[in-house]
Amino acid sequence: MRRFVVFGQKATASGDFLFDDLPGTSGRLDVLLRCVRAALLYSHGIRRDVTVYLVLGGGPRAPRVLRIDPRAQFLRPDERSLAILANKVLTPEERASDTSFVEVRPGVSILSGGLAAVLADMRGAPLYVLEENALDLRDDVSLGGPEDAFFVGDHLGFDPHTRAALAEAGGRAISVGPLSLHAEDAITIVSNELDRRGAPRAAWATPGRGTTARRAP
Amino acid sequence: MRRFVVFGQKATASGDFLFDDLPGTSGRLDVLLRCVRAALLYSHGIRRDVTVYLVLGGGPRAPRVLRIDPRAQFLRPDERSLAILANKVLTPEERASDTSFVEVRPGVSILSGGLAAVLADMRGAPLYVLEENALDLRDDVSLGGPEDAFFVGDHLGFDPHTRAALAEAGGRAISVGPLSLHAEDAITIVSNELDRRGAPRAAWATPGRGTTARRAP
Repeated sequence: MRRFVVFGQKATASGDFLFDDLPGTSGRLDVLLRCVRAALLYSHGIRRDVTVYLVLGGGPRAPRVLRIDPRAQFLRPDERSLAILANKVLTPEERASDTSFVEVRPGVSILSGGLAAVLADMRGAPLYVLEENALDLRDDVSLGGPEDAFFVGDHLGFDPHTRAALAEAGGRAISVGPLSLHAEDAITIVSNELDRRGAPRAAWATPGRGTTARRAP
Repeated sequence: MRRFVVFGQKATASGDFLFDDLPGTSGRLDVLLRCVRAALLYSHGIRRDVTVYLVLGGGPRAPRVLRIDPRAQFLRPDERSLAILANKVLTPEERASDTSFVEVRPGVSILSGGLAAVLADMRGAPLYVLEENALDLRDDVSLGGPEDAFFVGDHLGFDPHTRAALAEAGGRAISVGPLSLHAEDAITIVSNELDRRGAPRAAWATPGRGTTARRAP
């Protein structure tokens, strides 16, 4: 199972936010929710080989980790639907364990903890850290294994402790391009690279197949 | 100015939708609003060389086109903020002209019309149509000019009339990968390819520059 781990430095670890002002009341949980869509959903489908971890560092109940895997039902791409899901899962006090993930509904789990707990859940997977000015992911031949785990910062990036811990754990820095992008766009670009490595180009990029549009010379 | 043109086959051309149920009441305007973020915004910045057109094909006031360029102020990445902007612009009856775009606030314009009006606004720009099973955009050497215009379908794709009209206008079919993606992800991948063509790799993908993460051998 591939993983995307998104860090929300101030994203609320409780359900205590307003749906009508998500950016202003949730520590920018909206950024992380958009990453759920980017990581798990494609056109009319869900990626069956991807799990998303949201590491929530904000509010009195932090840190907690919300984990969503492809068994999640009725996962919708719009922010409000994802916010409703997060609210339902994060609101009850009693649910989070600090030793292992507790599945609170199919495919949706929660844990009291932060990066250490996430790394423990990965059992030695290859770790990639999305950074600026690092090796271009297109040039990284190691990329594309079924257990790859990608770590992404939110609009505040990684805090120094997280960056050091990821390096200590063997995290390999990769970059998606020359511009600093929104976390969800970085996930989209990683997914696209993985899609390409998993599918021989002749099988999909065949001009004229399946399209009626005329190509200019 | 680069352009992304997103077609919403049933996306409402009026402000008559509920913020609390955007997917269910707007003909999936949410899909198009997410494309605005993907096309115009990056981390803590707005792309100064991009304009987005939303071609709204749904409801009694269709077709109308909402155009957003980088002079738009207070453009935020979350869906609700973008929906509030769309509502404010689409609600007044009197604003749309059927001959040219009317700027209703800085950088935000509206027009009564559809594809023909959009093409007229492009004045002979190179046209690219995002399709499945077409030439891989990485292999398309023509890509990357300052006036490139990219046409993207929503979750329903292009209707036959639009696809034929784009082909007739010289639209060149390109593909972003082996999987059919959400419109916003397709835009993200196109933007990344353009970013890369505009920036020599040595200038950004320099392992060790600007990052403290250790790279595995």
